[in-house]
Amino acid sequence: MANFGYSRLILSEPVLKSIEGAERLAVKSDFVLRGMEVASDLGEALKDCVYAVGTTSRTQLKGRTVLTPEEAMQRLAEESVRGRVALVFGGEQRGMSDEDLARCTDVLAIPTSAVQPSMNLAQSSAVLLYLCHRQGLTPTAAVEAAPGAKLGTLGALAKRMRDVMLRAEFLNPQAPQHVLNELEQTLMRARLTQREAELWLTAFKHLERAVTRGAST
Amino acid sequence: MANFGYSRLILSEPVLKSIEGAERLAVKSDFVLRGMEVASDLGEALKDCVYAVGTTSRTQLKGRTVLTPEEAMQRLAEESVRGRVALVFGGEQRGMSDEDLARCTDVLAIPTSAVQPSMNLAQSSAVLLYLCHRQGLTPTAAVEAAPGAKLGTLGALAKRMRDVMLRAEFLNPQAPQHVLNELEQTLMRARLTQREAELWLTAFKHLERAVTRGAST
Repeated sequence: MANFGYSRLILSEPVLKSIEGAERLAVKSDFVLRGMEVASDLGEALKDCVYAVGTTSRTQLKGRTVLTPEEAMQRLAEESVRGRVALVFGGEQRGMSDEDLARCTDVLAIPTSAVQPSMNLAQSSAVLLYLCHRQGLTPTAAVEAAPGAKLGTLGALAKRMRDVMLRAEFLNPQAPQHVLNELEQTLMRARLTQREAELWLTAFKHLERAVTRGAST
Repeated sequence: MANFGYSRLILSEPVLKSIEGAERLAVKSDFVLRGMEVASDLGEALKDCVYAVGTTSRTQLKGRTVLTPEEAMQRLAEESVRGRVALVFGGEQRGMSDEDLARCTDVLAIPTSAVQPSMNLAQSSAVLLYLCHRQGLTPTAAVEAAPGAKLGTLGALAKRMRDVMLRAEFLNPQAPQHVLNELEQTLMRARLTQREAELWLTAFKHLERAVTRGAST
């Protein structure tokens, strides 16, 4: 990150209890560790971002277009005028789960050899941060007039949708997540402004009240 | 290397006595370690290559144009039709010396932040091998009719030139290397065929004999 001028590091649900080892290795990069934040889950980590691209070694993902790194850089550059954007990496052992990838607006895979498709975290992040740097992505990009919907707001909306749609018996209570993820993805694709996302959220608050009233009468 | 389909690894003057630690880390990549060669110096390591690009964190190098990674990829692709090409990395602590960089046809620097310009070896190699892979550079590229001059032959030529030019009192015996490197660089730039390099070598063998004869009469 320091090599390419980036500093905002958020760990989500870290297994690691101490960063002492990292401090020794982070030559001239202690500012990254000092500014590091810890989030309780990925939704929390991404809450003030308008766009997040998750990384995977899988080139096929049901229902999603897996971007090349270059395509993802293009999207990151476009989306960065709407607000904060994030690159999301999975843990060293298992990478990102389907559930984590569903929290991301887009998904990318670094094309690798079939012999060893799975890259180390340190190396995949070096490749992608290099490309970000080449793309001219800076931590302080100018933001347009209409700020994009924060993923935190979209997450709150998804939760509200889930509750309402379960009550309305639209979602299968045994497995509500798959259909919900699909709906959420369409809203992510729509590139909502923050105002529009809040409008949706208010709409579902009203719907929830109405559905609850309906159930109690 | 395994991530991007490369397998020919040559260590030059390694400090390391055992690769046991690497064997544990090289998941699905043991074929790279099994095929690894060890060379006594960089000239030996590069002897059958026609082109080598060295890596440095210095963006200014006296008398040389420092290429961007993308420019270097273009050159590697062009040169790979003449024969084997090499990417050369320095040791983790000090990078490549001037002497080592002089053994390379070209030099590249990965653009980094001024905050921390020096990259780890594992990460700079990940970035560059990713770019090689994207460039479509494969270990088995088709080679043109006229094979390029091997760096081993050019190295032998440089050594012969040095001897002759010292005897002829053209080079300063206290510091012959700088001027010699300049001459050698021009021959590298000329993209000699192997036949042309051998012609030069034979020419200098004759010159040496003539100069020695002259000195003894």
